[in-house]
Amino acid sequence: MKLFGGIEAGGSKFICAVGDVEGNVEDKLTIKTTTPEETMAQVIKYFQNVNSNRTLSAIGIATFGPIDLDCNSPQYSYITTPPKTGWRYFDFLGVMRAKFDIPMGWDTDVNGAALGEYRFGAAQGLNTFIYVTIGTGIGAGGMVGGKLMHGLIHPEMGHMLIPHDVIKDKFAGVCPFHGNCLEGLASGPAIQKRWGVKSAIDLPFDHPAWDLEVEYLATAFANYAMILSPQKIIVGGGVMKRKGLLPKICSRVREILNGYIPHEMILNKTNDYIVAPGLGEESGICGAIALAERAFMQTNKIPYQKG
Amino acid sequence: MKLFGGIEAGGSKFICAVGDVEGNVEDKLTIKTTTPEETMAQVIKYFQNVNSNRTLSAIGIATFGPIDLDCNSPQYSYITTPPKTGWRYFDFLGVMRAKFDIPMGWDTDVNGAALGEYRFGAAQGLNTFIYVTIGTGIGAGGMVGGKLMHGLIHPEMGHMLIPHDVIKDKFAGVCPFHGNCLEGLASGPAIQKRWGVKSAIDLPFDHPAWDLEVEYLATAFANYAMILSPQKIIVGGGVMKRKGLLPKICSRVREILNGYIPHEMILNKTNDYIVAPGLGEESGICGAIALAERAFMQTNKIPYQKG
Repeated sequence: MKLFGGIEAGGSKFICAVGDVEGNVEDKLTIKTTTPEETMAQVIKYFQNVNSNRTLSAIGIATFGPIDLDCNSPQYSYITTPPKTGWRYFDFLGVMRAKFDIPMGWDTDVNGAALGEYRFGAAQGLNTFIYVTIGTGIGAGGMVGGKLMHGLIHPEMGHMLIPHDVIKDKFAGVCPFHGNCLEGLASGPAIQKRWGVKSAIDLPFDHPAWDLEVEYLATAFANYAMILSPQKIIVGGGVMKRKGLLPKICSRVREILNGYIPHEMILNKTNDYIVAPGLGEESGICGAIALAERAFMQTNKIPYQKG
Repeated sequence: MKLFGGIEAGGSKFICAVGDVEGNVEDKLTIKTTTPEETMAQVIKYFQNVNSNRTLSAIGIATFGPIDLDCNSPQYSYITTPPKTGWRYFDFLGVMRAKFDIPMGWDTDVNGAALGEYRFGAAQGLNTFIYVTIGTGIGAGGMVGGKLMHGLIHPEMGHMLIPHDVIKDKFAGVCPFHGNCLEGLASGPAIQKRWGVKSAIDLPFDHPAWDLEVEYLATAFANYAMILSPQKIIVGGGVMKRKGLLPKICSRVREILNGYIPHEMILNKTNDYIVAPGLGEESGICGAIALAERAFMQTNKIPYQKG
């Protein structure tokens, strides 16, 4: 069976792994994200080691962004303007291509995770869905009509502006660009700063933090449902580990939509509509491997397998 | 040159026309929307007349919704639950198919208008964009990766929940489902009811109505830009006829995004990013004809022309 490499590149850590077309992941290595030079040296060494024993058919990169996905742009292959300033205008894909002469997949971390769920997880058989992560940041990727969402650049769904009742919640939000956008109000750091705690997960379940969180996330998911009409919304990330949060969000989404979208999945089956990732915490790395698989298929003009 | 029929079906009027692959529209007929029986009798008569002299190759239907677009559903071809109760669960496409044995295109009015702009208007050459209409209702359709947006059903972007500063604007909104969603706050009827006027267009340009309208629409467009990353946002509809409104919205969108999306079109060329329809008021009927063209191509397995 063909062997693919995957890189799930995050602002605090990189995960490198190898895997196959059945979604088996082996030999994971976690690297702390420091400077591009230091971090990439370890990434390159990892795949050179793999390659010295076995043949890698392709490598997929699912990375934090924003990144340039326009293959006609001179900055295609770059991370452009991330908050992590040391990585600004870093030619990530270019550095990898200079070392490995095999097909390379290139997309955002969240589009990668969406592709992972499509190939091996909760989005198998669908063609229009989103994968949302609620953690240090809020991000989302997905497919529309069977294609990963690209456009002017790529979606930045976490920064949607949503209703914020300043009488109920006086917190101004933590987003440096928009203050009280979704990420500014509902990300892990927002919860921590609003309530003065080190970790959101430490707050007891009857703490008012969670009612607010349900309200913001349910509003966001209702908006995603109305704007994109996804067949499913898959939600991961650290904040979602809070037990009992997801069912409350589902029921609040149904209330907010108030019968407007006349579909069974929303009217009666919201718990099957908004779901946890089928791959648990592996969506990202499986997605990076699926990006490699897809790049291999495209280079060799093999039709891509449906999930 | 092949001749195509188009139906732009709205809640107050139907437009029937014929046209060709170059976007020429001729012989338009406007019919008042009453009951399905009365209205459809006139529609059928119109196309039977056309067909008695010349050969129609296909008919495209771009209609008010919600409609069922899932070709595996028993209600595919139906308008399902529109506010206009006489049209609930009306088998629109089925009635047309029973009378005309030619390929039929079937989509929402806004996806139709988006396709019209793609074939003949402001979206030529793009693959990811939206068409928004601000009028009696607020609706949007579009393409992602070259495909018209379909999913669980189809987008209902007008009902997005947005920030509503109840101190600045005490009006509760007119949406029967969501109160103060975008349509509830910023549609033509919302402006009329908030300010007690018969038509929004009568309000002078220095009236506070327009500052509010700029704020709501700019918030919505910023959200669409972040959620979908369209290459262009095309905006039509009665409310947008107010001179000077569009440039103010463009400049407010740039302020709201605050440099977050690192792309030239948003940073410096917002006036070329959010634009009026290339086809003026003809996007809808040209789109219906383009739906017919596309159905003809698909039936005959001819690759669809790029805009």
